Amino acid sequence: IQCLTARGASQRNVLLIVGDDAGFESQVYGNNVLKTPALNYLANRSIVFDNAFTSVSSCSPSRSAILSGLPQHQNGMYGLHNTVHNFEFSFRIIGKKHVGPEDVYPFDYEVTEEQVSINKVGRNITFIKERVSDFLNGTAVGQQFFLYVAFHDPHRCGSTNPEFGEFCEKFGNGQPGMGHIPDWTPTQYSPDEVVVPYFVPDTPAARKDLAAQYTTINRMDQGINLVLEELRKAGHLDDTLVIFTSDNGIPFPNGRTNLYTSGMAEPFLLSSPDGRSKWGKRNSDLVSLLDIVPTILDWYSIQYPSYQLEGNLVQLTGQSLLPVVNDDDDKYKSHTKQQLPGVSQSRDAVYASHDLHEITMFYPMRSIRNQNYHLIHNLNFKMPFSIDQDFFVSPTFQDILNRTKEGLPLSWFKTLDQYYYRDEWELFDVLSDPFEVHNVAYDPRYVSVVSDLKKQLKTWQNVTADPWICAPGAVLEFQGKYKGNPQCLSMYNGLDGS
Amino acid sequence: IQCLTARGASQRNVLLIVGDDAGFESQVYGNNVLKTPALNYLANRSIVFDNAFTSVSSCSPSRSAILSGLPQHQNGMYGLHNTVHNFEFSFRIIGKKHVGPEDVYPFDYEVTEEQVSINKVGRNITFIKERVSDFLNGTAVGQQFFLYVAFHDPHRCGSTNPEFGEFCEKFGNGQPGMGHIPDWTPTQYSPDEVVVPYFVPDTPAARKDLAAQYTTINRMDQGINLVLEELRKAGHLDDTLVIFTSDNGIPFPNGRTNLYTSGMAEPFLLSSPDGRSKWGKRNSDLVSLLDIVPTILDWYSIQYPSYQLEGNLVQLTGQSLLPVVNDDDDKYKSHTKQQLPGVSQSRDAVYASHDLHEITMFYPMRSIRNQNYHLIHNLNFKMPFSIDQDFFVSPTFQDILNRTKEGLPLSWFKTLDQYYYRDEWELFDVLSDPFEVHNVAYDPRYVSVVSDLKKQLKTWQNVTADPWICAPGAVLEFQGKYKGNPQCLSMYNGLDGS
Ligand SMILES: [Ca+2]
Ligand SMILES: [Ca+2]
Ligand SMILES: [Mg+2]
Ligand SMILES: [Mg+2]
Repeated sequence: IQCLTARGASQRNVLLIVGDDAGFESQVYGNNVLKTPALNYLANRSIVFDNAFTSVSSCSPSRSAILSGLPQHQNGMYGLHNTVHNFEFSFRIIGKKHVGPEDVYPFDYEVTEEQVSINKVGRNITFIKERVSDFLNGTAVGQQFFLYVAFHDPHRCGSTNPEFGEFCEKFGNGQPGMGHIPDWTPTQYSPDEVVVPYFVPDTPAARKDLAAQYTTINRMDQGINLVLEELRKAGHLDDTLVIFTSDNGIPFPNGRTNLYTSGMAEPFLLSSPDGRSKWGKRNSDLVSLLDIVPTILDWYSIQYPSYQLEGNLVQLTGQSLLPVVNDDDDKYKSHTKQQLPGVSQSRDAVYASHDLHEITMFYPMRSIRNQNYHLIHNLNFKMPFSIDQDFFVSPTFQDILNRTKEGLPLSWFKTLDQYYYRDEWELFDVLSDPFEVHNVAYDPRYVSVVSDLKKQLKTWQNVTADPWICAPGAVLEFQGKYKGNPQCLSMYNGLDGS
Repeated sequence: IQCLTARGASQRNVLLIVGDDAGFESQVYGNNVLKTPALNYLANRSIVFDNAFTSVSSCSPSRSAILSGLPQHQNGMYGLHNTVHNFEFSFRIIGKKHVGPEDVYPFDYEVTEEQVSINKVGRNITFIKERVSDFLNGTAVGQQFFLYVAFHDPHRCGSTNPEFGEFCEKFGNGQPGMGHIPDWTPTQYSPDEVVVPYFVPDTPAARKDLAAQYTTINRMDQGINLVLEELRKAGHLDDTLVIFTSDNGIPFPNGRTNLYTSGMAEPFLLSSPDGRSKWGKRNSDLVSLLDIVPTILDWYSIQYPSYQLEGNLVQLTGQSLLPVVNDDDDKYKSHTKQQLPGVSQSRDAVYASHDLHEITMFYPMRSIRNQNYHLIHNLNFKMPFSIDQDFFVSPTFQDILNRTKEGLPLSWFKTLDQYYYRDEWELFDVLSDPFEVHNVAYDPRYVSVVSDLKKQLKTWQNVTADPWICAPGAVLEFQGKYKGNPQCLSMYNGLDGS
């Protein structure tokens, strides 16, 4: 019996591992305090990307973008599963789902927060291991599979389950009332030893928060080890494309819900069985999480379907990463690469689109980032940026609030007022100003840079059918006499938006 | 065979007729130019309410509120049909639906824009008449019924089908390319003779728009005549509760999408077979479209179900109008009247809640209005109010834009800049300032009025589980240690929101 595919492998599988609010707190990304042996192991079988970015720094929108390949303002009818529905394989999610509706994001089988508690399914690594084992030794036997393991670690816990600690770092640690996760050996960290990211205040409160986060990342790392071990035991270490990334920035100020680099940058490990010569290497190409769908489609040699949403042809703007990670660049001609006129695709630039985090947190932003510059358009800029329920009650943010009220030093790189009130356009020269402190969008020396980036951003918004393409200064007309010739018509409200 | 209900009628039916963007352009409300014989006829069998208000001045949210009895920020799982699902009757919509999802707003049978074109189902009065006839002489025979007839008239047409005129006033008029509606005898109006509402500029452009609107209202009125005639022929004129109203303000500046009185006030005719002694009378009580569900439940003697949404008990804040319209006030003890502590119910005050019209038009507002005062909270007040695609291209608004650009007189009661940029709080003394020109929210003489109204508004927001209750200055915390004790915690963003 001939079971080989055109590419010579007997089976082609995908394992997508997503951390929740995870960042660069790992040895893979240079943190020498927090030991992450599982991620180290995976990194040694991967290309490690140093310039990967989410298209939106918020949980549900990011997951919908990861699984659809489309930005949050466009997410349409084809989740990954629908795209590949004629393809014989088993599609499973274990962990945090947080996407909908069902008909766009169906899974053949799922164990998620819709069936069991979010902490159990997303943080109990023994439970996760067992579900992975069930799947690999059950449904998946003899069948190609796509397995999506969505950890809830290292998400915060303080707003919902403070009894487990700020990051649920005590959940399952065996102490009284904390439950017991048999496979987890908790590691404790001292607030003194943590590495404080440049965008987090260096305060006792933040250090304590970070120490708790480390313990939770440690649990996730041990969970990743268990998942990879199950993959190995099932014999699929060498026929499975493994991806590790996160959905959004870490839940600290300037992180999650922001499109600053500190909110957009993500860890990204891509392990291809066909790319052994490049294992362990690093790559500084610009990568978007919108590249995940094109990469997986490429892996399975599946074409993206041709369809329209509200009269617009839906096109992926991401690109397959297989040509980058595989041994023979020419052998893997991307099946999803498209010539989208005027759109700088991954490698040249990455894009982001955010509308809201919680329902009341309306603060639409659009962003383009290349290797030199980062442009952000804040559409609701006259109103303050908002704070989510979860982050608001965190010790780090409460400390910022209290110090602001009392007029004490923040030990932070901006003030709370600066954080709340942003210019409509922000341009950062990321090579000379990697922390994005100096907005040069209104500096005459950057006129042509701004103009070029705005043009590229608008083109991307157009290709992705962004309803906000004309905001906040104009109205988009596309019906009646504007059918086939959509226009932004100025409201004369003092905001030119261009 | 005994078919009588407890109330002595053999059958109890409801006919709900809703105009789309309809206002006070009718003889019933004092317009002597536009003849509306069908509304006159209905008014003579109704109490005519002079102080009825929508809870949101936008099409879909308003329809969802009309059919659920809950404001747009709360609309839950119980549309009217679900509420009465154990009750034997037939539930049908003919016309413009514009609500979803299916499981909240199911209809036993529907003829809507989902099956045929919106203009056919909502403006072709012959087609509408025939569907009503099919229903009354088919499915509804021998069965109690709820019939919802949702005209698309007198909605604008310019942005989608300009070939039919600004208000589709030419649609079906028999001229070449316009099609033919057999039952419609079009009436033309001259721009010179129209009555220009106080909130519309008195310009040639606006007058021409109003003249077109009149022709379309004339078509709706003839349609209402046909519908009532079908009801009469089927023998149900005397066992059917008939309501006529509209979903939102007229599509003119300060109207639709606004919570000013010009956007919130609606025509409201309630015809009860049990209220003949009051037929033809007028009533100046404050009435909300949120009263429609309690009224219909009362009519059928159905209790509103007890259920929770996200942990909050869902309660109707409207009141049955049957005690107001029926002959014997004491005979009709409302089945839905509830004591909601601190909430001024209809008769004392009406409330409104708006978040957005089109997806990009985020401009949440909350409002309370009593017989003396009208308070509006503009939550996104630092940004300009937005203009919808449909209204933007209207001759009336284009004329405002062009005159503003050219520095010409607007013949309007405000400037475009005033219209765009609003204070966070607006208070109008509606008795002395019915046009709502002078915002006295910051006038020291109104401190206690403002304070009282804010308190009532917050109470209503609380009872209706409004996620925006803390916006824009604070974060709502209700989980973890705030469970059972929700709090608004200040962000210290310079907006106290109180
Ligand atoms: Ca997340
Ligand atoms: Ca409407
Ligand atoms: Mg992250
Ligand atoms: Mg109206």
